[in-house]
Amino acid sequence: MRVTFLGTAAARPTVGRNVSSLIMQREGDTMMFDCGEGTQRQMMRYGTGFAFSDIFFTHLHADHFLGVIGLLRTLGLQAREEPVHLWTPRGTADTLRQAVDLGVERVPFEVPIHELEPGEAVKRGDYDVVPFRTQHAGRSLGYAVVEHPRMGRFNAALARELGIPEGPLWGKLHHGETVEVDGRVFDPGELVGEARPGRRVVYTGDTRPTAGTREHARDADLLIHEATFAQDEADRAVATGHSTAREAAELAASIGVRRLALTHFSPRYADDPRLLEREAKPLFPDVVTAYDGMVIEVPYREA
Amino acid sequence: MRVTFLGTAAARPTVGRNVSSLIMQREGDTMMFDCGEGTQRQMMRYGTGFAFSDIFFTHLHADHFLGVIGLLRTLGLQAREEPVHLWTPRGTADTLRQAVDLGVERVPFEVPIHELEPGEAVKRGDYDVVPFRTQHAGRSLGYAVVEHPRMGRFNAALARELGIPEGPLWGKLHHGETVEVDGRVFDPGELVGEARPGRRVVYTGDTRPTAGTREHARDADLLIHEATFAQDEADRAVATGHSTAREAAELAASIGVRRLALTHFSPRYADDPRLLEREAKPLFPDVVTAYDGMVIEVPYREA
Repeated sequence: MRVTFLGTAAARPTVGRNVSSLIMQREGDTMMFDCGEGTQRQMMRYGTGFAFSDIFFTHLHADHFLGVIGLLRTLGLQAREEPVHLWTPRGTADTLRQAVDLGVERVPFEVPIHELEPGEAVKRGDYDVVPFRTQHAGRSLGYAVVEHPRMGRFNAALARELGIPEGPLWGKLHHGETVEVDGRVFDPGELVGEARPGRRVVYTGDTRPTAGTREHARDADLLIHEATFAQDEADRAVATGHSTAREAAELAASIGVRRLALTHFSPRYADDPRLLEREAKPLFPDVVTAYDGMVIEVPYREA
Repeated sequence: MRVTFLGTAAARPTVGRNVSSLIMQREGDTMMFDCGEGTQRQMMRYGTGFAFSDIFFTHLHADHFLGVIGLLRTLGLQAREEPVHLWTPRGTADTLRQAVDLGVERVPFEVPIHELEPGEAVKRGDYDVVPFRTQHAGRSLGYAVVEHPRMGRFNAALARELGIPEGPLWGKLHHGETVEVDGRVFDPGELVGEARPGRRVVYTGDTRPTAGTREHARDADLLIHEATFAQDEADRAVATGHSTAREAAELAASIGVRRLALTHFSPRYADDPRLLEREAKPLFPDVVTAYDGMVIEVPYREA
């Protein structure tokens, strides 16, 4: 899995940071999360390609969704025919529909808009995108991308030793079936290890630190948490429904997260987010402050 | 007068060019023409400041107006209180109003929207902004910024020689009044030269070459004409209501324009618009292809 940050500024862009958007890529699937103004150009700049089919919105403040209007028109000019699915918190589809329909150009492909409740997982083969409640604006959501457990390792050396011929029988065992070879019966438990956990990447969108994030980001391989402010603006974070870098780090440390990426920086820190990093690091050492164009690869836990 | 190009791409942005917008500055007045997606960030990048009060739209194709939504919200976050006036072709105010009202944030200042007919000049002290009909989309408009004639030069040396004391009497003569000094009567015609023409800067927006442009850009100090295509796509220019670089140059050459700036380049030429320049130059030597961030100063004709 690979995350590309397309915009890491809070409500207003700066010369160096665009407003919110990020791309997650996983084995050929590309998903976008939030789509602030100018996102299409960031995609060109950072080479993410346009082969995606879903945009998940955390909430509909302007800096998180205005870019969808121009992006859909550009996809239309590229002769796209496949639908683009928009996923948005319950109660916000009408606004998104107004945005999609704005102006005179018609989008020449389907744009289904789906409202989501917290916990209403979007299922995708071997992973789910799970929305969870956040605390920012009305029914704002965070999203956990959760891979299903992978099969355990197959012990090929032992299989050869036992005289099980390489081929379909190995596959059956690996998938949990009992097989018979020359009258001998082999149980998958003998040859296949424990199922291995899939990866978990969580994006909070704008929010105070919440129980929902703690629940859904527990043991996450990567937590992308907003950190609009430093600690001297902790009161302002409370008042505006945002988080400080230290609060994000405290949360990450309390739930066994593997890596923390901070994003959504107030203009005050946008040019130099080192203060935010300094405040977070003592509580959670494996923290990075994201920048536009930053790519984070998320490996499986075992080598 | 100074023109700053904020976006010089046609319908889709590229890594190097944003969609359409430009700023004109004149003695403390700042006006914007068109406002494609991402314009607010271009303003930051190129340091135009946000002290403007008017946006003139040539037409409401997405690449010419989507940026107004986020720009107005950013002005709100900057605690702006003064109104921003939007000027748009007859019949398009509703779409612009939908854009301004999109989403949940309210803009905390007035945003009057004014529809314009061709010829319905917006008067501003010592200059006018004159919309004229173009040929692109419905009631699309170009705009001519036309300074009023300036007073003729005052012959200070002669005034001294004639014994007219420096001070209020000089001002009266300069403004066309007859004055009396020790019984001698002086006529302004003796001491003040001919009124001098003001400057004229014309922006076409998207269009075929038109009679309206020829009329309003005659003798212009600067004509900013779209040149979406090169000559090998002349048929496509006709079909889509755009111009080729050569067509723009032919037009400029036929009406005594002083300088021509081409803009609004199809992605095919965006990385390297030299082909467009090569096709235009033989017909009109003083031509430039605009780029994002380009500044053109427009001096008075006489030194």
